[in-house]
Amino acid sequence: MTDTRYNLIAGGSVERIAALSDGVFAVAMTLLVLDLKAPAAELVHTDAALATALLDIAPRLAVFLLSFLTLGIFWVGQQAQLTYLDRSDRHLSWLHLIFLFFICLMPFSTTLMAEFLRLRLALALYWLNILALGLALLATWTRAARANLLKPDATPEIQAAICRRIKIAQALYAAAAALCVIDTLLSLGCIVVIQLFYALGPTRGPLSKI
Amino acid sequence: MTDTRYNLIAGGSVERIAALSDGVFAVAMTLLVLDLKAPAAELVHTDAALATALLDIAPRLAVFLLSFLTLGIFWVGQQAQLTYLDRSDRHLSWLHLIFLFFICLMPFSTTLMAEFLRLRLALALYWLNILALGLALLATWTRAARANLLKPDATPEIQAAICRRIKIAQALYAAAAALCVIDTLLSLGCIVVIQLFYALGPTRGPLSKI
Amino acid sequence: MTDTRYNLIAGGSVERIAALSDGVFAVAMTLLVLDLKAPAAELVHTDAALATALLDIAPRLAVFLLSFLTLGIFWVGQQAQLTYLDRSDRHLSWLHLIFLFFICLMPFSTTLMAEFLRLRLALALYWLNILALGLALLATWTRAARANLLKPDATPEIQAAICRRIKIAQALYAAAAALCVIDTLLSLGCIVVIQLFYALGPTRGPLSKI
Amino acid sequence: MTDTRYNLIAGGSVERIAALSDGVFAVAMTLLVLDLKAPAAELVHTDAALATALLDIAPRLAVFLLSFLTLGIFWVGQQAQLTYLDRSDRHLSWLHLIFLFFICLMPFSTTLMAEFLRLRLALALYWLNILALGLALLATWTRAARANLLKPDATPEIQAAICRRIKIAQALYAAAAALCVIDTLLSLGCIVVIQLFYALGPTRGPLSKI
Repeated sequence: MTDTRYNLIAGGSVERIAALSDGVFAVAMTLLVLDLKAPAAELVHTDAALATALLDIAPRLAVFLLSFLTLGIFWVGQQAQLTYLDRSDRHLSWLHLIFLFFICLMPFSTTLMAEFLRLRLALALYWLNILALGLALLATWTRAARANLLKPDATPEIQAAICRRIKIAQALYAAAAALCVIDTLLSLGCIVVIQLFYALGPTRGPLSKI
Repeated sequence: MTDTRYNLIAGGSVERIAALSDGVFAVAMTLLVLDLKAPAAELVHTDAALATALLDIAPRLAVFLLSFLTLGIFWVGQQAQLTYLDRSDRHLSWLHLIFLFFICLMPFSTTLMAEFLRLRLALALYWLNILALGLALLATWTRAARANLLKPDATPEIQAAICRRIKIAQALYAAAAALCVIDTLLSLGCIVVIQLFYALGPTRGPLSKI
Repeated sequence: MTDTRYNLIAGGSVERIAALSDGVFAVAMTLLVLDLKAPAAELVHTDAALATALLDIAPRLAVFLLSFLTLGIFWVGQQAQLTYLDRSDRHLSWLHLIFLFFICLMPFSTTLMAEFLRLRLALALYWLNILALGLALLATWTRAARANLLKPDATPEIQAAICRRIKIAQALYAAAAALCVIDTLLSLGCIVVIQLFYALGPTRGPLSKI
Repeated sequence: MTDTRYNLIAGGSVERIAALSDGVFAVAMTLLVLDLKAPAAELVHTDAALATALLDIAPRLAVFLLSFLTLGIFWVGQQAQLTYLDRSDRHLSWLHLIFLFFICLMPFSTTLMAEFLRLRLALALYWLNILALGLALLATWTRAARANLLKPDATPEIQAAICRRIKIAQALYAAAAALCVIDTLLSLGCIVVIQLFYALGPTRGPLSKI
């Protein structure tokens, strides 16, 4: 007898999780561009004046770049998981929705942190957002493994590699965030360096094992 | 002789309904993030002041969370249907478009309800939006079944399970909404509990049959 | 010898045209929701006051509904074509991009027309947008047929049916628009009736042949 | 022994790069429509007044059109590459993310250039954005070729054709941008002509080899 409870038939499509995620990422990635406004034409009449006006909005561009970088890291991270998903279920769909909820918050957290570079609370919230994303990805992967939703080519080694990556990255982020008791800018600097390392880091060599 | 009337050849792609839906859901889910604005930097200089300023926008974050939750429930619900669709037709495409229209309205209804927590009209409109989404999903499923658009693995039991889920959920929402004659907050609380139950509810056990 | 000019290898993916189109439609469909703002909470304290405040934004809801309807019609229309596309080429990709450009303009045209219901210019621009969409769809279909990009199941009858649909619909829209020399509201009413007919119209019976 | 380092399993899905790109392009293409606002109804009561008011926003429509054109060119260009991708890797994913970052900036650069038509800095930034997109596409293609990520039908001739196209186009853009030492409008005019040529240019004949 087939079990026909709704909760067993809902949420089974990996393709739709991927498509919704790509849509949410695409909107979240472009959200901060809306904050980039051209200077008022009546106030700017020379190249020098335009350069000055653009320097005023340079911090927003930096925030946009940082938000884009963070979203890119987690987009690659989620994609690495979805590639190994054979199918989904309702619980896994909801875990990915929770992940996407925190993705939506990322542009806001980044803006907040950039506005209040010297305040520990702003840095703590920024880090909490990164932590929430890491925990969500760990939860989706754990759920997928336990509920036998993975493809056969997701060997135990690969499963371990994905978990290890999330845990090491989050440990590094937490250590960097803890540096805010000394200085928030030092703390932020370390977080960005870790992010750049994960985005651009080597595929070979000892550092690639992190 | 093949019938070549336009109305018979239009609207046949399930993939495009899914892709458009994922796009609309992605935009609708992120819309309310635009309402989250960082406090003005010149007014906030301490962690305590930032905490106070953030508490002021906490209700908006709650609205965003609630809207995201509702959209997630209906995204999973629509996905459960589309998984069983073999193909589509023009009428079914339009029923899904009507469904998406009410999805687009959800962030507005949720904001309205949150702004006017004590007004029955705001709660009634919020409930009407949920009702419209339920009716639209019931209509799409009924149409798909009648027009023989379902895959063979959509057994009569599965068809019944999907209809039953929508009807029971809507009956519970209606009962919760009716509580607004006593108190609107009680009514809203019950609706949110029902939503959480459907999002996080058990896959096994007696409650999973609801 | 294979011809390796760039212009012969670019623009060949039907899936990507469909995906980009679904994204553009999804954003365009939700754009006008941004205009729906909840009334100010400090001015509204009773259900009656809220009802009055909502009646003030009812026209915007109507504009949103009309824009959604128009976009839905052209989404179904484009989908009917893409279903029969075997592959694409660079020219066809650009014709679809032109189509998407006018899709992006639709929310603006609809808003303009709704703001200036009594002005013929506003109605004329609204109609010109519909005309541009129709011409773009006719151009994409003609290009696809001439460049042998259609699937084998796109029989001459189906090709004729798609062209006939566009031409009859545009003739009806043009006739309705011409009525604006008598009255712009009459003209708009006729356009909306034609749109509803095409959205909800019968699949069987003599009227379905239009 | 399979190598199970995370960096080797991440970023492998071409479909997800395409889907994310289509989402980002769709949002970027529609962003500038938000700048088109209907004139205030209380100030406009005749067709003539509406025509005047619309002429005021015509430059914004032109900026929207130009931004759409540029994005279309690079969408077709990226698609030409992705069609030949057999699979992806983490580095290639990040190169495409960098490409998408500059895609997001395009509406801003175009607006800036249109606001300050007479300033060389605005034109230089607009050109730098086009250059960054070209370099990103060159980098993705080079990476894909070196890392053996291409399909077998990406013959050396096709690989050379794609590189040649990017290099010739960028050389033309650079030459046009250099004309700004004479006159910025001349420079912009040349860039637009080059863009139109690449969008609408011939598939056959000697000019198609550029």
